[in-house]
Amino acid sequence: MGSIDANLATSFLGGFKPLDLDDLRTQLHQAVDFITDYYKHVDSHPVLAQVEPGYLRRILPPTPPGPAAAFDSVLHELRRGVLPGMTHWASPSFFAYFPATNSAASLAGDLVASALNPVAFTWLASPAATELEALVLDWLAHLLRLPQRFHHGGAGRGGGVLLATTSEAMLCTLVAARDAALRRAGGGAGVAALPRLVAYGSDQTHSTFVKACRIAGFDPALVRCVATRPESEFALEPARLREAMEADAAAGLVPAYVCVTVGTTSSTAVDPVGPIAEVASLFGAWVHVDAAYAGSACICPEFRGYLDGVERADSVSLSPHKWLLTCLDCTCLWVRDTRPLTEALETDPEYLRNGPSESGRVTDLKDLQVGVGRRFRGLKLWMVLRAYGADNLQAHIRGDVDMARAFEGMCFRLRPRGGMGEEQAAAENRKLLELINASGRAYMTHTVLGPKYVLRFAVGSTLTEHRHVAQAWELIKEMAHAVIMSTTVTTTTTAAAALPPPPPMLLLLLLLQQRGRSLTIRRMKPYCYSRLISQLGDY
Amino acid sequence: MGSIDANLATSFLGGFKPLDLDDLRTQLHQAVDFITDYYKHVDSHPVLAQVEPGYLRRILPPTPPGPAAAFDSVLHELRRGVLPGMTHWASPSFFAYFPATNSAASLAGDLVASALNPVAFTWLASPAATELEALVLDWLAHLLRLPQRFHHGGAGRGGGVLLATTSEAMLCTLVAARDAALRRAGGGAGVAALPRLVAYGSDQTHSTFVKACRIAGFDPALVRCVATRPESEFALEPARLREAMEADAAAGLVPAYVCVTVGTTSSTAVDPVGPIAEVASLFGAWVHVDAAYAGSACICPEFRGYLDGVERADSVSLSPHKWLLTCLDCTCLWVRDTRPLTEALETDPEYLRNGPSESGRVTDLKDLQVGVGRRFRGLKLWMVLRAYGADNLQAHIRGDVDMARAFEGMCFRLRPRGGMGEEQAAAENRKLLELINASGRAYMTHTVLGPKYVLRFAVGSTLTEHRHVAQAWELIKEMAHAVIMSTTVTTTTTAAAALPPPPPMLLLLLLLQQRGRSLTIRRMKPYCYSRLISQLGDY
Repeated sequence: MGSIDANLATSFLGGFKPLDLDDLRTQLHQAVDFITDYYKHVDSHPVLAQVEPGYLRRILPPTPPGPAAAFDSVLHELRRGVLPGMTHWASPSFFAYFPATNSAASLAGDLVASALNPVAFTWLASPAATELEALVLDWLAHLLRLPQRFHHGGAGRGGGVLLATTSEAMLCTLVAARDAALRRAGGGAGVAALPRLVAYGSDQTHSTFVKACRIAGFDPALVRCVATRPESEFALEPARLREAMEADAAAGLVPAYVCVTVGTTSSTAVDPVGPIAEVASLFGAWVHVDAAYAGSACICPEFRGYLDGVERADSVSLSPHKWLLTCLDCTCLWVRDTRPLTEALETDPEYLRNGPSESGRVTDLKDLQVGVGRRFRGLKLWMVLRAYGADNLQAHIRGDVDMARAFEGMCFRLRPRGGMGEEQAAAENRKLLELINASGRAYMTHTVLGPKYVLRFAVGSTLTEHRHVAQAWELIKEMAHAVIMSTTVTTTTTAAAALPPPPPMLLLLLLLQQRGRSLTIRRMKPYCYSRLISQLGDY
Repeated sequence: MGSIDANLATSFLGGFKPLDLDDLRTQLHQAVDFITDYYKHVDSHPVLAQVEPGYLRRILPPTPPGPAAAFDSVLHELRRGVLPGMTHWASPSFFAYFPATNSAASLAGDLVASALNPVAFTWLASPAATELEALVLDWLAHLLRLPQRFHHGGAGRGGGVLLATTSEAMLCTLVAARDAALRRAGGGAGVAALPRLVAYGSDQTHSTFVKACRIAGFDPALVRCVATRPESEFALEPARLREAMEADAAAGLVPAYVCVTVGTTSSTAVDPVGPIAEVASLFGAWVHVDAAYAGSACICPEFRGYLDGVERADSVSLSPHKWLLTCLDCTCLWVRDTRPLTEALETDPEYLRNGPSESGRVTDLKDLQVGVGRRFRGLKLWMVLRAYGADNLQAHIRGDVDMARAFEGMCFRLRPRGGMGEEQAAAENRKLLELINASGRAYMTHTVLGPKYVLRFAVGSTLTEHRHVAQAWELIKEMAHAVIMSTTVTTTTTAAAALPPPPPMLLLLLLLQQRGRSLTIRRMKPYCYSRLISQLGDY
């Protein structure tokens, strides 16, 4: 209980130094070698993990160790215990879900960010973290040719923020739109009008849209998933949206938010941004553009058209952790006006108050996101843009599109034959998918478009080259043969029943096949194959 | 438009390889050297960045470069442009906000996770990522002696998930509690009863609680911040909570959620978990325990008492990115029953459907969080627990507590003297804080407790040793002297006006000083100084 001066003379008692510089250097270098070794041999692993639920508990102890372990032995456990249970998103033969691209610059930037480890909730808590994030968002907005109103450095009140995922971008903008709609709905009674608010997407909008609406307190029954059609390439149709909004408004409901997708998850369908925004504006609804995946292509002038009309939107989000070589998590959200967001998301606790925030000269990024704490995500995105430059990033997009011309982004399926019904066709395609994925040689996933169960082939993993696509194609053919040989066709009474079954090699028909039933696989671009769908009789 | 087989023979056209193994190895090793160099010299930087808003735009170009840059030059820009604008959370003289601790194991784990880069929304999308996360949450639950019902491997339906921040943990549990309350409130009309739901915390609960309530659609007017008192150590008092809940229930409102804090942000006050949970249970409200910072101390048996009563809670969250050597972001959320969460947060799109999910034998972590995509956070936390072991982690906590015995976690202020009023005292302390932080030699922040503006001194940065605390103490004395010399005291009519001003060296009195106005700084523990407050006359 002596004076502080006396107490402070006491030396540090424990010998444990978690940031000892020698250990740090040695262990991080070991981790780097682990990573390069991993990438070097990633295609020796089954792409889809071939393990049973609970596998890890049979390897690792149920309680934590008491004593420390040598770092070598930790890496050994990682290699022997964890890697075999991974599904390898980094594999060049990963064609499932969406590509989670990555790069040396991103990894280096992420590592440095984790070491600096600032918690830049306010500008003052780490000015460079806030300013670099704002700058790199302006850089990317520039590449995408987003209107000036979405730039921090623009004349208006807009700007961007880096969030974890599209879900967070949707949630933040939904909450802003919700509160704005509540103010419009009047009554002044807080959330009294909330049960009358309506949000709109299409039946192809990402599932997280409905989830975000539910989190924000929208009535799940008032989240409209407007039906799309193959004839309209699975895009949200402005006329149908308008119909739904008019009916709701007439019923005394309050249209609050419209989610427009540039590149849907199932089929990369592109909703027409401008015309949708025009409809939404009739009702004063917020327009958010979800360009999570396909938006990255818009850094190339020749593909920028998919964002046409974005100047009418209230907000746009895009995830560089998908197609822009940046490891998870990194989603850009730009808004034309930050005020509705900060009104909904601002906090002002005494313990974070400071001069710069009160001066109004700085942006506190905590007020544009769900939480308060945040990673320094701006650093990795800046490293990617800075190290590679626009030219290489465009080359990267174009290189993927080039592969896509051979195969990418296509939904395909084993075509029903010999009078098969849709149900049997789905079962057969399910079987085909299982065989492909159980082989460990590639990993693909499926979706349902209209009544049809189809397989998705999403090219774009960073290490994927043409040869991997070619190998996958061979694998598909091989497994399709196996499926066909093992299937007993139950004849149904559809018109197709009259057609003779084609020979096995030719059975793997693309949904997107040429008119006239040619068996050639069409060249296609992933970001626009929804456009091709309408060209094709047998979507 | 040839066959796919022919197209695939085309070679990759661009020469850009963002994961070229040689580049990757070289650049990551360079990043490691950058980091170790940074840590080595971190105390040569001003702790609080000494830059003006907009500084970075005066250094870096407004638009992204076209061509690629050499990696060396990118690191050079980082060193010369970004570092000077950082507030250095890693500095041993960082005593602001809360310590964001870090470690070699965490950095290595984070790096490897970013390289593997799985998006484990479902178990199948990367079984090891899901299983390692579940296992490490069980490990930590074991160390914290959380009841079995919070373990994945327990007999019940509980378990944990790693989220970004406490805000997300609060939001997820709020939404689960909200939907459960809506079901109880009946009427079956979706969110019709939402405007009647009430959530409770104290006036010391983290500001993100109110924000999370607003995001979840609670009426901001129905988020009760029950007043605390110095006499009760700024803890939420069960009797006062009960009073508020009874009044609300009597008024036809629906108590839905109570947030209990173990270690508040302002003063590390500890709400009594058991008694609060008992009150909440009378109204069927969800009880969440926010142990973000102080919870980590509970891995030591001697400090576990702060979680007493946790067996009555519905959920607990704790952030290893604060005091458990894990870089941002990493918050553990444990729930005694995952079903209310999954009911509120589940999505089931066709494109994510798979056998294991449908078998019910696996947990899909996307259904326990806000978004769908997610980082592989389990790896870094596993690396920390695996490499250091429980023994070292406990030593780490005890080491910090040892420093805390000299100073940590205290709120202090320049005591009003010569008849100063509270307002002038606050101005003087604000001035003191400004001088300390402008020196660049340490960074501290402030809060307001009751009517008093006080300075916070949060010890615990990973590199902090006793000598840094001692240096900070010298700095405080030096700056206090400067403030006192420059202040003209305006005499007010308070009782204190009669006291003669003490000599400058003795003016820096702790709020938490000994009874009897001894000028000695008391030994104290950060996690429990709220307990000390009541021992002290002049809180």
